[in-house]
Formats: sequence, C-alpha cells, structure tokens
Amino acid sequence: MVSQRMKYWGWGYENNGLNKNQVHSLIKILAQDFGVLASSNIKKPEVSDIKLHKPKLIPPDSLLKFCTNEPYERVLHSFGQSQPDSIRIFDGDFKHAPDVIAYPERSDQINAIYDWASGVGAAIVPYGGGSSVVGGVTPDIEGHYKGTVMVNMTKLNKVLEVDETSRAALIQGGAKGPELENQLKPYNLTLRHFPQSFEHSTLGGWIATRSGGHFATLYTHIDDLVENITSITPSGCFESRRLPGSGSGPSPDRFIMGTEGALGIITEAWVRLQGRPVFKLTAGFRFAKFLDASLAVRSISQSGLFPANVRIVDATELQVNGAGDGTYTLMVVSFESSDHSVEPWMKRAEECCLDHGGIIDIDWRENPDTNLKGAVGAWRDAFIRMPYNRENLTPRGIISDTFETAITWDKFEEFYWAIKDATQQAIRDVTGQNGAVSCRFSHAYPDGPAPYFAFHCTGKPGGMLEQWKAIKYAASEALIKNGGTITHHHAVGRDHQKWYEKQRPKLFGHILKDAKNRLDPDGIMNPGVVV
Amino acid sequence: MVSQRMKYWGWGYENNGLNKNQVHSLIKILAQDFGVLASSNIKKPEVSDIKLHKPKLIPPDSLLKFCTNEPYERVLHSFGQSQPDSIRIFDGDFKHAPDVIAYPERSDQINAIYDWASGVGAAIVPYGGGSSVVGGVTPDIEGHYKGTVMVNMTKLNKVLEVDETSRAALIQGGAKGPELENQLKPYNLTLRHFPQSFEHSTLGGWIATRSGGHFATLYTHIDDLVENITSITPSGCFESRRLPGSGSGPSPDRFIMGTEGALGIITEAWVRLQGRPVFKLTAGFRFAKFLDASLAVRSISQSGLFPANVRIVDATELQVNGAGDGTYTLMVVSFESSDHSVEPWMKRAEECCLDHGGIIDIDWRENPDTNLKGAVGAWRDAFIRMPYNRENLTPRGIISDTFETAITWDKFEEFYWAIKDATQQAIRDVTGQNGAVSCRFSHAYPDGPAPYFAFHCTGKPGGMLEQWKAIKYAASEALIKNGGTITHHHAVGRDHQKWYEKQRPKLFGHILKDAKNRLDPDGIMNPGVVV
Repeated sequence: MVSQRMKYWGWGYENNGLNKNQVHSLIKILAQDFGVLASSNIKKPEVSDIKLHKPKLIPPDSLLKFCTNEPYERVLHSFGQSQPDSIRIFDGDFKHAPDVIAYPERSDQINAIYDWASGVGAAIVPYGGGSSVVGGVTPDIEGHYKGTVMVNMTKLNKVLEVDETSRAALIQGGAKGPELENQLKPYNLTLRHFPQSFEHSTLGGWIATRSGGHFATLYTHIDDLVENITSITPSGCFESRRLPGSGSGPSPDRFIMGTEGALGIITEAWVRLQGRPVFKLTAGFRFAKFLDASLAVRSISQSGLFPANVRIVDATELQVNGAGDGTYTLMVVSFESSDHSVEPWMKRAEECCLDHGGIIDIDWRENPDTNLKGAVGAWRDAFIRMPYNRENLTPRGIISDTFETAITWDKFEEFYWAIKDATQQAIRDVTGQNGAVSCRFSHAYPDGPAPYFAFHCTGKPGGMLEQWKAIKYAASEALIKNGGTITHHHAVGRDHQKWYEKQRPKLFGHILKDAKNRLDPDGIMNPGVVV
Repeated sequence: MVSQRMKYWGWGYENNGLNKNQVHSLIKILAQDFGVLASSNIKKPEVSDIKLHKPKLIPPDSLLKFCTNEPYERVLHSFGQSQPDSIRIFDGDFKHAPDVIAYPERSDQINAIYDWASGVGAAIVPYGGGSSVVGGVTPDIEGHYKGTVMVNMTKLNKVLEVDETSRAALIQGGAKGPELENQLKPYNLTLRHFPQSFEHSTLGGWIATRSGGHFATLYTHIDDLVENITSITPSGCFESRRLPGSGSGPSPDRFIMGTEGALGIITEAWVRLQGRPVFKLTAGFRFAKFLDASLAVRSISQSGLFPANVRIVDATELQVNGAGDGTYTLMVVSFESSDHSVEPWMKRAEECCLDHGGIIDIDWRENPDTNLKGAVGAWRDAFIRMPYNRENLTPRGIISDTFETAITWDKFEEFYWAIKDATQQAIRDVTGQNGAVSCRFSHAYPDGPAPYFAFHCTGKPGGMLEQWKAIKYAASEALIKNGGTITHHHAVGRDHQKWYEKQRPKLFGHILKDAKNRLDPDGIMNPGVVV
C-alpha cells in the first residue's frame, strides 16, 4: 500500500479536495453576491517544472539515513498554508526551497542534526504538519546561513503512555490529530483539541504555536491542556516536571509555549485528556444583527456555563461559504459531557440567546444530530471544506485570507467596525473595488471575544502578493492600533513578527532574545520567528 | 481615629487574636489527643527591648517624606508569617532588621527608590501585606549589600477603573483583599480571590507569588484572573497589553507571575471579576477514610462541574482545630453562581460523593446557611482562626507548620503516605516523639489534587529553629523525590529556594538569571528569591 502523498500546492492529501460543483458554487457566490471575480485559471506547477537550486548542504553519512533532498520533498517543505505561500506556489517562486529535509525517528537524531547544522552554519526550521497560515514554517531565511534544514517531526508520532487515573497521556511531538486520537480511543479518552488544521497538524506544533481548538470557552488554547513539555534545544534538554498545577516560580511551560521553534523542538508532552463525551446537545439560533448575537455570546461567556461551542458567524461568512442567504447571523451553542446530562446548561444558554433576540433555528430538543441539521450542519460542512478553498481561489486570481484576534467586551463594538472598515478600505485602495469582509467568533472569554475575520477580493494576476501585503498591513495596523492582539491562535510566524514586536512589552522582547542566546547560541532555530 | 497597628509578632491587627478559651482549647487538644506538649510560655519582645542596629542607610531628602526608620516599622518589616519567622521573633533575633521602610504613593517614587538603592548599593525587598509563610519578605539579605530597603506597597491601594461590560478592573498592586473588594462592591462585582491571608495580603503580592484562592477548581490561582500586568523594574516599565486571551508568542504575564519581586514590583494589573454570587449551595459529607474521600474529589474534578469548593479535611486536621472528633474526614462541596440555580450541579456532585461512601453531614437542601452549620461551619470558623494559632504556639514551645504541593492522581496514594511518613519520621528523629501530621486538599484539578499538609510537634525551647529546619528539610526532600511540586501556592521565598532549583528545568534557571540581569542589572531586587 502506497501511503498518501501531501499536496505541495494546497491542503491535505493529493486525492482530497473540493469537487467541481463545490468549486463552481464558491466562485459563483463570490462573483454574483460580492462582485469578487475570477480573472484567470493558472495550473499548479509540476514538480518536474519547478526550478530548484542545487542543495547547498549535504548531510554526513551518519544523518543520511533519515535525511532527503528529493525534489518533491524540497517542494513540499518550501511553504506552509498561508495566502502568500499559495500565491508564490502558483507563481512558481521556489528560490528559497530548503536544502535538506530530515525525518528524525529518535530524539538523539535531533541532537545530531543540531550539531551538524551548527557546524556548517545551517538554519533549522522545525516542521510539524506544515499547516502554518502565518509563514511559521516557510523557510524564508535571511542572514548568513549556508542553507536550510527542515526537521519534519511526523515520524515521532506515538502515544507513549496513558495514565487513565489522571486522564493524561505522554505523546510525541510529531503526532498528528487523527493519529493521537486513534491511539487514545482504546482508553475511551480524548484530547479533544480540534483546530481547523486538526488532520494535518501536530501536538508539538500546537504547543509551539499556542493553537486554539474545539472548545470555544474554558480550554480554548492547547496551553490549558499541557502538563509538561520536553523540548530539545541546541543547549540541551528542557524538561519540566509533570504536575496538575503549581505555584513554583514562573511557569516554565508557559515560557516555551508560543516560541514557535525558535528555542528548540518539542519532542514530547504530557497532556490532559477528557472522557469521551456521552451527553451532547447542540442548538442553533438566528440573529438579525451580528452585534446582537455578540451580546448573547457575552452573556453566556459570563454565565459560568462553559459551553464547548458558542460561536457566531455573520451573514457574509455564511453566504460566502454557501451556508446562509446573507440575511442572518448564526449562533451555534453546544454542551458536551462524559459525566452528566447537559440539559440544564443548555436551557439556561438558550434563555441568554432568546433574551438577546435570537430565534431558534435548530432546536436542541430534537437531539440527536442537531449539529448536522439546517444552518448549523451547513456551516459545519463548510468549516471542514474551507481549508481546500485556497488552492482553488489563488489560481483564479482571488485573494482570500483570514486573521483572528481578541479584544475586551468594552471595546468590541468600536473595534469590530474599525477592523472591518480598515480591511474593506485597504481592499478598495488596492483593488479598486469592494471585497467581502466577514466576521465570526472562534472563542469567547468572560472578558472578551476572539473575533475571526475573513476577506475575499479580486486580485491582479502577477500582482497578488503585493496586493495581499498591503491589505494584511492595513488590517494588522488596525488590530494593534485598536487594542487587539495580532493573533489569538494562528501564531506569529514571519507574517506577524512586525506587529508582534509592537504588541509585546519591550523588556519582554529583550528577555526572549536573551533566552534565544542561552538555548540557541548559534541562532540556528527558525530564524526570523518570534524572537 | 487612630488606625489599627499590625502585630509584629503574629497575625493581623494588634487587637485581634484568639481569646483565652480558644488558646486553652487548642493547647489541650494537642496535649491530650496528640501528646504535643507546651513546654514554656515566653512573652513577646517589646519594641523598646529589641536591639536594632543603627540604620546603615539614610535616604536623601527627596525620599524622606515617604520613608521611615522608626523602630516599630523596622521591627514590623523584619519578618513575614512563617514558622521560622515566628521562632526568631520570640527569640528576639532582629539582627537582619531592614534599614529603611519606604511607603511610595506614586509609581515615580518607586523609580526614585531604585535609583537611590542602586547608587548606594542597597537591597530592596518588595512588601505587600507581609503575609509570606516562606520567607519571601524576610530581609535575610546575603552578599555585599550596604543595607536593606523595604518597599511597602500598601499606600498604592486604589481600584483605578472598573469595566462593568467586560467585568474587569484596573487595581493598584498594594490594595489588600478587603480594600479592593470594598471598592468593587458598588458595581456588584467581585474578584472573589480569597487566600487564607486575604485580609492582610495584596493584589501585587498575590500575582508575584501565584497565590491560590477561594475557588477549589478552575480559577485556582490568581494567574487565571489576570488580564495584564504593569511592573516597574530597575530597567524600566514592563507593561503587557490588556487582553481576554492571546496566542502572540509566550505570555509575558505568565513570565512575571511567580517572580516574587526579584524582577520588579507589580504596581497595577487589570483583573477579571465575577458577578456577585446570588445562587449558592453548600453540602458536607463524612467519609470513614481520607483516601475514599479523595476518590470522590477525583470524580468531581473530572466531571466538568467545577464547584467553587470541593475540599476534604482529614480527621487529624479537624480534631487539631476543634472541628471534629478524629473519627472522620469531612468533605465540603459548594457551588455558586451569579447567573443560574446550581441545583443540577450539586445533585450530580452529591452522587459522586455517595458513590464513594460519603455520608451526608450537612444537606444542601436545607439551604440557606449550610456553610455555617455542623462540621462544615466548625471547619470554616477554624479556618478563619488558624492564622492566629502560631503566635500562641511558638512561645509555648510548640512547632507548627504547613506545606502544600500538587501531584497527579496516579501517584497520589503512594505520595500521600510517603509525605506523611517522611514528616512524621523527621518529627520523631528531631523531637524523640510523634507529632500530629494531617492533610487536606486546598485545590483539585482533573489530573490531580493539591494536598495541604500540617504538622504540630513538641519543640525544645532555644532549639526550635534547628528542629523546624530538620523537619522542613525532610518534608521538602520527600515532596521533590516523590514527584510533587515544592509549592502549589505558598510560593518559593527563601525557604523553598533549594528545592525549587531542583524542580525547575536547569535551562529555565539560566533563563531566569538572564532575565534578572536584564531587568535588575545591579541585582538589588529581593536577592535570594526565585532567581
């Protein structure tokens, strides 16, 4: 059996993607409802046609057995999943392709890669599932490096130990979502961390980037599910004590989370698991206005009910994705438990929705499978399909991207308009016409939401990269100027670095640089990211 | 009206404490039930009798208006609230008394203190309520410092801004628990962070030490309630962005939390508030065995019910504190909400207790005021009284201390016996007879409890400090050897530093030292703590 190959030009496996009807429908809605027009239909470049420079590095014999410089591998590891990545792929721009791809199967092999890379002056880019949408794994390495080595962690993909009593497991950093869930299933336990990239992202990647998952409240980031971290750094092993909680000095784990491979590679972590949910309820509500729906989210977020899902999707976002007609905002509320019926929880959440003008779209009393029905089900399907959109839109000259943030409730309404306006204005400035700018909430806290914006606009073939940069710049400036965070869970990567540096306390930037000097004295780890 | 003076020899205000009957009862129980005998009755030293060295530092005129070297102030600031502190107070050991006590009323005055202290080579010890039980504010400064300046933050005690929409407030670091709650009351909001030290500890101190509060589950540490931090360091101001959540690089706040004044002084923080609870239920259960009760706690912790209280207290702890007859473990379960009735929550938690052999002691159906009734009420009274015990036991030659930790459930039972045995063995080795060693849970997580141990034993007047050190050493070694944390919420201070260094990843120790060099290049901030 041949294992499935990953696409180098888009999302997931080569044989997965949108079917013709789905592509047609997406293009049609963008054109007819939003005036966003396809202007070309470029074919994806074939590996054999891509001009790759000769590898600048050849690993020593001792590393050769787990390293490759095969063209497909170099092409695959040239990009992540961002909009600029996609544009450059279809432009055939592979000048920065890495020289070597390493697939370590043991920790000591990572140390061996570090030693070799330090010696020859190479840069290292840690690579999990390659799903970064912010340039976190795109090896645009500047400076005097002699070449780039990608360290693909996906062969370190085992659940090493399960502690059923504490509901926790020791899992290797390279385990992808489905792999680790399959290994936990026999124990009737689950990590239940489902970022949109779930299928093609890894535990180590989630921790390194502070991934946001399934739970819309409470355990929003992977941060909350981590008991300890083992990270291999060029200066040695950084291993924290496995504990359910501690107050012993600043948390070492919280300092490693979010360093995005700039200080080392996360090889293992003990993570907190959940019992598999037995009781589940899902409800859907329609709101005339997005901001009314946001008030319902606020009241639920401050209620202490902690729903697994409390997400609102505006009319535009539903419409673009074929899950609504553009006349209403959808709110999805779910509760789940391995322990008890969640009816009292849902009853109260429903009251919060009705109090703020919500109209029942899908009644949770019609359980089971309310999560598959009506607008809720249509949105769910669209959500799963969404990562495949980009590989179809970019070659047709349509720029499409998302960015997410967080803001306290007091500032939210003003913030919402400021971000939408700044993005729409930038699209007009850059393309000469309006685009589709939409918003949903990915997560919600008692003190504020995590709004998630998406935009689509007509691009100019050959000029899309510059157009995207101008829109991204305007949106990012607006986020920082209006008090938001440059990212809630997409991470910093290379694309957000400029604004991340504006956001973080200046002294903390110095602390990170000092930590980099300490853990990675030769500066070989993911240069240009976070630090 | 004269404001109340703080005791320099014990807990709280000079005119508060145990009454004669309460002291008599405590001494009698320890003697009759545990063979722990009072062997002396030393009087507290009077300020006029305490030999203080002449102040080694005199602040310049510009600082004089908010600095003092008055003997009472120097005596008061010579110690925190630990057992060794108490022993040294009654021994009249004030050799290390600080030279100057500063009471800044504005941030710029803190900068002025730093400048002066750096210039003259003085050490600075940040001081909130002075409630540290681990030597965190005891100015035992080693090295070539020319003297010690205590920075008492309690004049910076205002709630500066309340955001009712997001339920958050900007509060100064020197605000004590009752002060900040009183200022929040008009808004019908509350921080609801109630460490046992609540009355005499400050928000800045809580954040600096990762204090553990009221909530036994979920929001256990103050960490979870912090939106941002402003810390003044000798290298400038460290201010993070106020956000409900973020994934932008490692959390700057989580790096400051737990640094215990070694990197700066926390002057302000935005914190998350709660609606004042309207719905409250409390139940009490008796268990024949502590370990059976622990299984009930585990099942509730893993249920997703998130009770405000789920604490178990063993038979010995109840008996020592006059709240039980030594035949049963008590479990207290409480739910509270500002939003909805918590009956369904309590019903399910009760099932978990009954499933594990619990017997109803206080029935929540008899609400209200079940938290004041029976064993639950007796334990509550004892808990409030407890901080006053030490000032009565130390002068009578009784050593009494507590320490807390956390451990995953899989290791808990073995850990429990190992810690109890090591502590009891150390008491026998040191005193020649058994002491009382008890355990309760202060907080509980899905993956493990935070056990809180207490011990009482007969000391040898004049030798108590060495005796305490030997017992503390044995208990601390056992915690680290058996996989626990050296502290769950009491902090590191000077007393835990040795074991904290064993616990933390070696590379993280280097990172902290580098951060210290960056933020406090002259090493003036709380030397000997954390870093």
